[in-house]
Amino acid sequence: MNNSKVLIKREWTSIGSLDESKVGQKVLIRARIATSRLQGANLCFLQLREKLFTVQAVIAKGGVCSKSMVKFAGDITRESIVDIEGTISKTQVPIESATQKNVELHVTSLFVVSEAQQLPILLEDLSRNQALLDQQDSEINEISRLLENTSLTNEEKEELTAKKSAASRYVNVGLSQRLQNRYLDLRVPANLSIFRIQSAVCALFREFLSAKDFTEIHSPKIISTASESGASVFKLGYFNTHAYLAQSPQFYKQMAIASDFDRVFEIAPVFRAENSNTHRHLTEFVGLDMEMAFKDHYHEVLDTLDEMMCFIFKGLESRFNKELETINGQYPFEPFKFTYPSPRFTFDEAAKFLAEEAELLKDETYIVQNNDFSTRQEKKLGQIIKKKFGVDFFIVDKFHTEVRPFYTMPDPNNPGLANAYDLFMRGEEICSGAQRIHDAKLLEENAKHHGINVADIQSYIDSFKFGCSQHAGGGVGLERVVMLYLGIFNIRKTSLFPRDPQTLLL
Amino acid sequence: MNNSKVLIKREWTSIGSLDESKVGQKVLIRARIATSRLQGANLCFLQLREKLFTVQAVIAKGGVCSKSMVKFAGDITRESIVDIEGTISKTQVPIESATQKNVELHVTSLFVVSEAQQLPILLEDLSRNQALLDQQDSEINEISRLLENTSLTNEEKEELTAKKSAASRYVNVGLSQRLQNRYLDLRVPANLSIFRIQSAVCALFREFLSAKDFTEIHSPKIISTASESGASVFKLGYFNTHAYLAQSPQFYKQMAIASDFDRVFEIAPVFRAENSNTHRHLTEFVGLDMEMAFKDHYHEVLDTLDEMMCFIFKGLESRFNKELETINGQYPFEPFKFTYPSPRFTFDEAAKFLAEEAELLKDETYIVQNNDFSTRQEKKLGQIIKKKFGVDFFIVDKFHTEVRPFYTMPDPNNPGLANAYDLFMRGEEICSGAQRIHDAKLLEENAKHHGINVADIQSYIDSFKFGCSQHAGGGVGLERVVMLYLGIFNIRKTSLFPRDPQTLLL
Repeated sequence: MNNSKVLIKREWTSIGSLDESKVGQKVLIRARIATSRLQGANLCFLQLREKLFTVQAVIAKGGVCSKSMVKFAGDITRESIVDIEGTISKTQVPIESATQKNVELHVTSLFVVSEAQQLPILLEDLSRNQALLDQQDSEINEISRLLENTSLTNEEKEELTAKKSAASRYVNVGLSQRLQNRYLDLRVPANLSIFRIQSAVCALFREFLSAKDFTEIHSPKIISTASESGASVFKLGYFNTHAYLAQSPQFYKQMAIASDFDRVFEIAPVFRAENSNTHRHLTEFVGLDMEMAFKDHYHEVLDTLDEMMCFIFKGLESRFNKELETINGQYPFEPFKFTYPSPRFTFDEAAKFLAEEAELLKDETYIVQNNDFSTRQEKKLGQIIKKKFGVDFFIVDKFHTEVRPFYTMPDPNNPGLANAYDLFMRGEEICSGAQRIHDAKLLEENAKHHGINVADIQSYIDSFKFGCSQHAGGGVGLERVVMLYLGIFNIRKTSLFPRDPQTLLL
Repeated sequence: MNNSKVLIKREWTSIGSLDESKVGQKVLIRARIATSRLQGANLCFLQLREKLFTVQAVIAKGGVCSKSMVKFAGDITRESIVDIEGTISKTQVPIESATQKNVELHVTSLFVVSEAQQLPILLEDLSRNQALLDQQDSEINEISRLLENTSLTNEEKEELTAKKSAASRYVNVGLSQRLQNRYLDLRVPANLSIFRIQSAVCALFREFLSAKDFTEIHSPKIISTASESGASVFKLGYFNTHAYLAQSPQFYKQMAIASDFDRVFEIAPVFRAENSNTHRHLTEFVGLDMEMAFKDHYHEVLDTLDEMMCFIFKGLESRFNKELETINGQYPFEPFKFTYPSPRFTFDEAAKFLAEEAELLKDETYIVQNNDFSTRQEKKLGQIIKKKFGVDFFIVDKFHTEVRPFYTMPDPNNPGLANAYDLFMRGEEICSGAQRIHDAKLLEENAKHHGINVADIQSYIDSFKFGCSQHAGGGVGLERVVMLYLGIFNIRKTSLFPRDPQTLLL
C-alpha cells in the first residue's frame, strides 16, 4: 500500500497518448488490468485500461522477463491497479478490442499498486452495447410469447426452451444492480463519459453567462417557509424549530436582482419531495438557474436562454468528441439536432400542431385540455417539430397564466396569457421560465389570489418595494439536459448517485 | 410598470463607461436615484447609481427642460429606477462624491421605471466607511467611561452628555438590521463587490482545476446515514423514513476516485448542525472540494492545493481591482500577502513557534495541548508567521492522527502522525485535507477503532475493495476565504443570506 513513504518523481505516460509516434519508446504507465489471458506458461496478454482508453500489453518469457513473472501477471485479479513499464511496439494487425489499436506494450516490469477482490459484476457485462442487449431481449421475449401457446407439443416446447437458453448470450445487468454497485458501474468508459459530459454542460453554461457579466450566487438551501409552490417539500429539524429544503433558488435569485446584481446564475441542488416514480423525476437534482434584468422586453432574456442552450450543444459537439463516441459505442443514439435561433412557438400554436395530429391519427388524447400539455402531448409535439423543422430543440412561449406560478408576469396584450416559456429537448421540458412580477403590489395581490399566506413570504415581497429592474429567468435541469442530449431515457443514468422516493442507496 | 408590452431595441450606456471621451455625446442610461437635491425651482442635481458606479446628473430649466420637470425630478424617491437621457459634459471641478468625477449628465428626458417606497434605512448609512464608525464608537465609549465616574458634578455630567450626543454623527446600522433588510444592504457597492469577489473565487478555483483535467461532480446532499463524523447533522423526513443532510461530499468524492474519475471537484452547500455562534461558523456554507489521485506521494496534491490558492489570490488581485478598491473604501483592510510556494511547516514545528512565543510573552495559553491548536493559538500562529515570513497564507502538514477523521492515512515514517494538513489565511483555517486510506481493510479497522458502525458505511468501504488509486484532497470554505482575504471579521458579511443557529431570516 502506498502511504507516501518516499518522495519521488517519475515520468508517466497516459494510455490515451500511446500511438505509433511512440514506437520504440520505454514508458511507465499506471492502469487497471481489464482482462488477462495466459497463453501457455510463457506468454500472457493483458488489456490495460486508464479511464476511456485501453491498450494491449504482452508479457513474454525472455530477457528480463522470467516464467514466474508471466505467471504472476496471469494471476493478477481483474480491476487491480498496476504500475507497468515496457516498450511501445507496432502491432502486426490492429487490436480491435482496444482503443489504441496500432500499438502494444512489451512489458519489462510490473507492480501491483492496489489489488482488487473478486468482482460481483464484470466490467465487461457493465459495458455491453445496449443495442445488442435490446436485440437479445426482443428475441427472448418473442420465444417466451411462442412458449405461451398452449397447443405446443412437448418436443416443440423443448426446442423453444433450448432456443431461449441459447438466445441468452449476454448478462444483462439491471439498473438497480448497477446502482447498488455504482462505484463499479461508473468505471465503465461510457459512464465516465456521461459524467464528463455533465461536467461540460456546467462549464459551458458558466462560460456563456460569465462572458455576459453574470455573477455566480449561492443561495441558502435551508429555508424557513415552504411557500414557493404547492409542490411537496422536505421538512427538517432546525435546533429548537424546523425548516425546509429549498425547491428552487427562485426567491433568492429575484432578491439578488432587486439588490442590483443585475445578472445572476447558480448551479446547486434542488429538492423535491414529490412521490413521482418516473424515468425523469428525482427527489434531488442539480438546477442550472439564471435570472437577468432586461431593458425593454423579456425576449432579451429568452433570446439569451436560446443562445445559451445552443452554445452548450455546440460546445459538447465540438469539444467532447471522444466522450460522445464512447457513449455512442455502448448506448447508440441519434445525434442531437438544433439550429440557432431555435424554432419558437406560442403555446396556442403548439396546441394547434397537436390538434392537427389528433385529427390525422384519429387520437383525441392529443387534443390539449386545461391549457397545459400532458407528458405524452409534449413527446408528440417533439416528434411533430422534429418532422416539420428537423430539430430536437425548440421553445414554447406565452403559456396560459392559470398554469404558471403566482410570480409570473401576465401578458399585457393577451388576457389569460403570461410572459412565460418552456424549453424542450426531444419532446421533454428541460427549462421553465418567465418574466417575473417586479411590482410588490401586484405580486402581493397575485399571491393572495393563489391562496398563499403573504406573511410567509413577506421579505420576498418587500424586496420589490424599493425599486426593482424588470427581469426574467429560468431554471434548467442538469440531469435532464444530459439525458436528453444523449438520448438516454432514464435520468438515474445521468445522476452520479441518484435519489428517488424508493431508494437512498450509498 | 414594464410588462414587455412592446418589442423595441434601444442603445444603452453604462455609468461605469462614462468618461471624458464621451463628452458631447447623447446617452441613454438606466440607473437608480441615489440622491436628489433641488436648488431653487429651476435646478436639480441627481446622483445616479448603477452597480458600483455613480455619476452626477443636472436638470436645469431651459430648452426641452421645463420647470415642472425640475420639480418632478426633485420629487422622485431615492432608490427609484429611472431611464434618463442627456448629454455628457465635462465638470468644472471634479465631483468627489461620484465615481465618475470628470463628467456629468445634462438631462433632456427622464422616466421613472420602478418607483421606490420610503426607505427603512438609507443607503448612505449602509455605505458608511467602517473606520469612521469605529472611531465614532471609540469616542462614544470613552465618553461613556468618563460618565461612569460617580464623583462628577452635574455640570460636568451635562457637558459630557452633550459631547456624547455630538459625537454620534453617523447612524451605525448593526448587522442584524442589515440582514433583516438584506436586499437593501446588498445594493451597497462594497457589498455588491464582496459577492463579485465570492463569484470570482469560485471561477478561479474551477479555472485552475479544469486546466488540470479535473471533472466537476455533483454528489447527493440527502444521505441515508449520518456517520461521516461525530459532528451534529440535520435530520429530515424522507417519505416513509428519514434521512440526513450531508456534512461534506467526502465519501462521494472518494467513491468517484474509486470509480476512476481520477481528479474531481465540487462546489456545493455543506450543512453543519453545530450550535456554534462564532464569527466564523455557519450552519450552511459553500464547500469548494477537491480530490485527486496521485502517483507517488500526497505532496503532489498538497502542492496542487498550494498552487491553486495562490492562483486564486493572484487572480483576485489582478482582475478585480475595482471591486477590491470599492470594498476598501468602506471596509479598509491590509492587502493580503502571499508567496508561492507558501511557507510550510509540520504541526510540531508550528507548535514550537507557539511555545517560543509562550515563553516570550509569559503566556502559557499559547502552549499546545492535546496535539491540536485552539482558535486563539491559530490566530497567534498567523501573527508569528506574518512577522517571520511576511505572509498571510501558510500550510501546516503532519497533524497528529488522534485529531483527524478515521479515513486519514497514517504517516508511515512517524508513528502518531498523519499525512494530513490544514491551510491557513490570516491565522484561521480555511482548508482541511489529507491523504485518505484507499485500502478497504485498514479503513474498516480504523472505522471500528473510532466507534463507527461499519454497516452504516458499508458501500463507502466496499468501494475500495476493487482496486483504488492512492488519493488525497481537501475542502475549502468559500465564505471563510472571502472573509479572510478581505480582512472582514464576520462570516455573515460574506454569505448572501447567512444561516446560523439563531436565525433563519428571509
